[in-house]
Amino acid sequence: MTLSVMLLLSILVSFVAFGYAAWLFVWVKKQPQENAVITKVSGLIQQGARAFLKRQDQILLAFAGGVAVIILLFLPSPVWKGSFSKNLINAISYLCGTVLSALSGKIGIEVATLANGRSAEAAQKGLKPSFMVGFRGGAVMGMAVVGACVLGVSLVYLVTGDTQAVLCFSFGASSLALFAKVGGGIFTKTADIAADLTGKVELGIPEDDPRNPAVIADNVGDNVGDVAGMGADLFDSNVASLAAALVIARKLDLVSGHHNNVITVFCYAALGLLASVLGVMTAKIGKNGNPTSALNSSTYVTTGIYAVLTAIATAVFGFSWKVWAACILGLLVGVVIGFTTDYFTDDTKKPVHLVAHASASGPAFTILSGISYGFMSSLPAMIGTGISTMISYKLCESIDPAFSSEYALFGISIAAVGMLSIVGMIVSNDAYGPIVDNARGLAEMGGLGDEVLEITDELDSAGNTVKAITKGFSISAAGLTVIALLGTFMSEVNDAALELGMELVKGFDVMDPLVFFGMLVGAAIPAVFSAMLMLGVDRNAQRMVEEIHRQFNTIDGLKEGKVDPEYNKCIDIATSGAIRELIPAGLVAIMSTIAVGFIGGVYAIGGFLVGNILSGLLLSLFMSNAGGLWDNAKKYVEAGNEGGKGSEAHKAAVVGDTVGDPFKDTAGPSINTQITVISLVASLLSTLFLTMSILH
Amino acid sequence: MTLSVMLLLSILVSFVAFGYAAWLFVWVKKQPQENAVITKVSGLIQQGARAFLKRQDQILLAFAGGVAVIILLFLPSPVWKGSFSKNLINAISYLCGTVLSALSGKIGIEVATLANGRSAEAAQKGLKPSFMVGFRGGAVMGMAVVGACVLGVSLVYLVTGDTQAVLCFSFGASSLALFAKVGGGIFTKTADIAADLTGKVELGIPEDDPRNPAVIADNVGDNVGDVAGMGADLFDSNVASLAAALVIARKLDLVSGHHNNVITVFCYAALGLLASVLGVMTAKIGKNGNPTSALNSSTYVTTGIYAVLTAIATAVFGFSWKVWAACILGLLVGVVIGFTTDYFTDDTKKPVHLVAHASASGPAFTILSGISYGFMSSLPAMIGTGISTMISYKLCESIDPAFSSEYALFGISIAAVGMLSIVGMIVSNDAYGPIVDNARGLAEMGGLGDEVLEITDELDSAGNTVKAITKGFSISAAGLTVIALLGTFMSEVNDAALELGMELVKGFDVMDPLVFFGMLVGAAIPAVFSAMLMLGVDRNAQRMVEEIHRQFNTIDGLKEGKVDPEYNKCIDIATSGAIRELIPAGLVAIMSTIAVGFIGGVYAIGGFLVGNILSGLLLSLFMSNAGGLWDNAKKYVEAGNEGGKGSEAHKAAVVGDTVGDPFKDTAGPSINTQITVISLVASLLSTLFLTMSILH
Repeated sequence: MTLSVMLLLSILVSFVAFGYAAWLFVWVKKQPQENAVITKVSGLIQQGARAFLKRQDQILLAFAGGVAVIILLFLPSPVWKGSFSKNLINAISYLCGTVLSALSGKIGIEVATLANGRSAEAAQKGLKPSFMVGFRGGAVMGMAVVGACVLGVSLVYLVTGDTQAVLCFSFGASSLALFAKVGGGIFTKTADIAADLTGKVELGIPEDDPRNPAVIADNVGDNVGDVAGMGADLFDSNVASLAAALVIARKLDLVSGHHNNVITVFCYAALGLLASVLGVMTAKIGKNGNPTSALNSSTYVTTGIYAVLTAIATAVFGFSWKVWAACILGLLVGVVIGFTTDYFTDDTKKPVHLVAHASASGPAFTILSGISYGFMSSLPAMIGTGISTMISYKLCESIDPAFSSEYALFGISIAAVGMLSIVGMIVSNDAYGPIVDNARGLAEMGGLGDEVLEITDELDSAGNTVKAITKGFSISAAGLTVIALLGTFMSEVNDAALELGMELVKGFDVMDPLVFFGMLVGAAIPAVFSAMLMLGVDRNAQRMVEEIHRQFNTIDGLKEGKVDPEYNKCIDIATSGAIRELIPAGLVAIMSTIAVGFIGGVYAIGGFLVGNILSGLLLSLFMSNAGGLWDNAKKYVEAGNEGGKGSEAHKAAVVGDTVGDPFKDTAGPSINTQITVISLVASLLSTLFLTMSILH
Repeated sequence: MTLSVMLLLSILVSFVAFGYAAWLFVWVKKQPQENAVITKVSGLIQQGARAFLKRQDQILLAFAGGVAVIILLFLPSPVWKGSFSKNLINAISYLCGTVLSALSGKIGIEVATLANGRSAEAAQKGLKPSFMVGFRGGAVMGMAVVGACVLGVSLVYLVTGDTQAVLCFSFGASSLALFAKVGGGIFTKTADIAADLTGKVELGIPEDDPRNPAVIADNVGDNVGDVAGMGADLFDSNVASLAAALVIARKLDLVSGHHNNVITVFCYAALGLLASVLGVMTAKIGKNGNPTSALNSSTYVTTGIYAVLTAIATAVFGFSWKVWAACILGLLVGVVIGFTTDYFTDDTKKPVHLVAHASASGPAFTILSGISYGFMSSLPAMIGTGISTMISYKLCESIDPAFSSEYALFGISIAAVGMLSIVGMIVSNDAYGPIVDNARGLAEMGGLGDEVLEITDELDSAGNTVKAITKGFSISAAGLTVIALLGTFMSEVNDAALELGMELVKGFDVMDPLVFFGMLVGAAIPAVFSAMLMLGVDRNAQRMVEEIHRQFNTIDGLKEGKVDPEYNKCIDIATSGAIRELIPAGLVAIMSTIAVGFIGGVYAIGGFLVGNILSGLLLSLFMSNAGGLWDNAKKYVEAGNEGGKGSEAHKAAVVGDTVGDPFKDTAGPSINTQITVISLVASLLSTLFLTMSILH
């Protein structure tokens, strides 16, 4: 097996995934959509989502263009020093990363906004057809995201043979994720909060009432936040994990003179995609089956297929079994962490019940107990991440005693690749959620009757349960990825040091005051970043509330439902506000990295990354899980517990849910992206930090 | 200047402080207390506080006795290996640490419960006399705490000449702090929340209504939490900073054959105490002066005196000017951090106004904005701590090129000593708060009239402002101390390694998977620890609410105010509950340290401590500041802003305040103690971790 054959095979697998995605897309589109109201509202949602993407693309074009110019001028070294072709390759790779990620997000949005109405109407024929529309719609996104990822990385490596270009590709994906995930997160919660504040609270109209000018923006938000944003996030993590693994693998291959390690990385990545395709193909549900177990069992099937396929490949191609073990270990730990996280947010488990019970004493106790369980929920995932880091390191350290530390780092990065191998399945399951969530709203607006609503409710609730699991999974996967990126950073620094004849960096000793200084600052950044996002959501929601008030005050007949509200105005506010609020937060993260790097050099940056990873993991687990917990505690109360709807406990639980919304959908998951972005910035600027810092 | 002369001088200074404290105590006691209601209630508070201390002492006796036996058997090495006398010294030092800290807490409580009534009555003669009673009452505590600290450390070192005995003394102080600070924190919030829930919310009676069975427990809580608890906390930090500095200083002295560095540490510590005495003596306030600036200016005066005194000593005794600079740097950074923290909690600044404004949209926005500003508030303190660590390291590194890393660590520990040098003044100002807070309540119950209430309100508000500053100060001081303790840990490990002929530990490289594993687990511990405390407060408050209901239902004439409630029952619940809830949380922290140590050895523990410090600092800054912010936002609304009392904004602000209570008075400040305890456990068990771990 030569490297180029492997790369071509990877590209082939990605086309298989695209082909399957196209087939699924056509299948979804062929499903009937006849109800007039559903068709209209679904069309409005589609237009709104497209408007957001268009606006995002414009801003992104300016941003990515600027970054591409900077890369062209300075990376890997100033262009006037004769590295033009390298710089050009890097700039193009960067742009490819943004474009491919944006494209797969666009495909996801398109199919999700097609599938929602069709899933609602299919529910008239029963649970199974409705489930299949939601699931296959989500799967299009899953296949597109992972296919684009494997395709992009393989192509960039095939053309350039250079891992720095892959890092630039990864940085492009991260830039897009910053806009899509963080911007989408602000968008969705802006609309959600504004719609609730004016609709449910002030006017006393139902959640999805079409008179509310924010109602379409709210539905658009589900798509741009949960479909496109989450897809970009996992695209980002997946590419970053491959980039991290490739940097080390190539280094090892260079010294050993073969391509075994790079081939292993591509082989495992391609097989992950293949396993996801097979997992989606074989997913099925009985006529009145349980959608949650259908979704979960497809995850298990994919995991199993992946383990078998990689084992066969390892045997056939003679890869190292230790590397295989690290890969499978990462995957298993990811699944276990997902299910541990589930404990803290599942409405059949103790934490949700206790938070619901505490709510009977008032909202302060909802908040206190939710924060407490959120804090606790971080422990298993932190231990799990720690264990998989440690074991994969120790496993691979012994592969070649001459390069024990490089193989050890390779082990960690392969564990991250393993954890992310089934990401196609994860994205599919995750994108299923907002589709059936929207389907539920559409079924209500379209007046499809109580029986249909019961079905869509069941599908929606399965989506929420699965989401909790995939969220824990994706945070841990991002955590392991950034740990691998830390190894990449050191490796990049040492490449530069070697070239410049400087002393090599052996590690980052916490007793070194520069490292410690970096750690302290780095640990504070995720807190500041998430605070800025939450305050941004708040400010933006206030703007939209004003607009809603204006419409109700100036548009005659709106309150009576005779005229349609100006939905687009609200979508505009959410869109422009999201982008306006995300830019300062993103700049704080990036500029602080650059500042620490130029002040304290590579040692301070090493510490900075570590501090950032530690507190970032902690806070994102805390915020995501606390948010999910509050959401389910509210639903648990609404199901009739602790006094049910309208009780004091319910009011308190609603407060918890409102606090939890930006926690779980804006700040918590955005921290992943923040960590990845600054890890890549640090790796790309390592030469500059090495040569131009003040204190070192 | 020989070492023994210096030690005797230190002991002399501590007696000066004790003498001055005794004089102040007598002065406070001589002030008139004539009002019958005030005398009665103040007596009840005193009895309640004594009951808590008594109960705490009993449990502590069992706990400390057990630990002392373990130390006697195992530290520094198993007693059957012939180290009986060393083990005995360690065990006795440990017990001295607990006893001295407990004694100074007891003195503080005694004078605070004497001073509260007298300060209330003095307010009839004007602001100045009332302020002086409060201030001097607080100063007794300040002098007692720091006097006991300097005395204890000097005596232990004079008798043993061994730094491990000082570490054991410090561990004793930490054990007591765990009970006093954590237990006191649970006690005070249990009573506060239960009193509010039943009194203000259910029965609609005022905050300090004597019919409420929890009202005395609530007032007792202020004393045991804020006076005794905070005193124990700063005693703990102060001793730990001296212990950390002494371990390194002695090592340096051993290799250089003189005692200069140890002498420097004692000299600077004694001068800090002396400066505090002088600062308290010269504190004054005009007849209608501003109490806040009186308190703050006494802090500046102490800082100035300290800088001058230490400069003179450095010149006269020929200490290193670099060490002096590190010491003063620590002190200045501490003061600056205190004032930065103040920005986030001061009711004349933007964050408080914005949180109050957000409250108009409902409690969810109070919480979201408060959490956001709380997150942001961590940044300046983290940067400040990072800068003082880095500069003090770099400054002292060059003192002796042969021992650059030891001198660098010495620099950090001296910065911590510097930051804690004015702790006598800080404790005085801090203990002033609960005294005048109680005085305000007593003036109301005693019916002293509106003019008096105005004065006590002004004094109380000054107490709150100053508290915010001292809190930021004490968290950073604890942070710097534990960073210094990290150096101690490494030094202890290497002493053991040298003795055992094992390889020396050069540092803790974050790229070492054992270190990284430790960091991930260590970072999660403060989150779990604070979650357990918050849930404990909640559980305990529910128990007290039940008891209050019982009393109102079964005691005839209680509602009408004809019969006194059974105050003691509530105090009992708060006391026993506090101890019951703190033990599991303390055990989780200590057992996880031991588990990580025996699994991953000294490298994992090094990482564990770093992770713990980073996330602990972050979370304690976040929780303390968010809590203070909510408290002041509520007061700001109550002062008539955003609709004033009774408005929706007020209701929301009350929710924020209730969430903030356990944040700022239980969980946030307890994290300090948790970090110190495990740092000391790690240092003391370093030999065991070095020789008996599974993975290393």
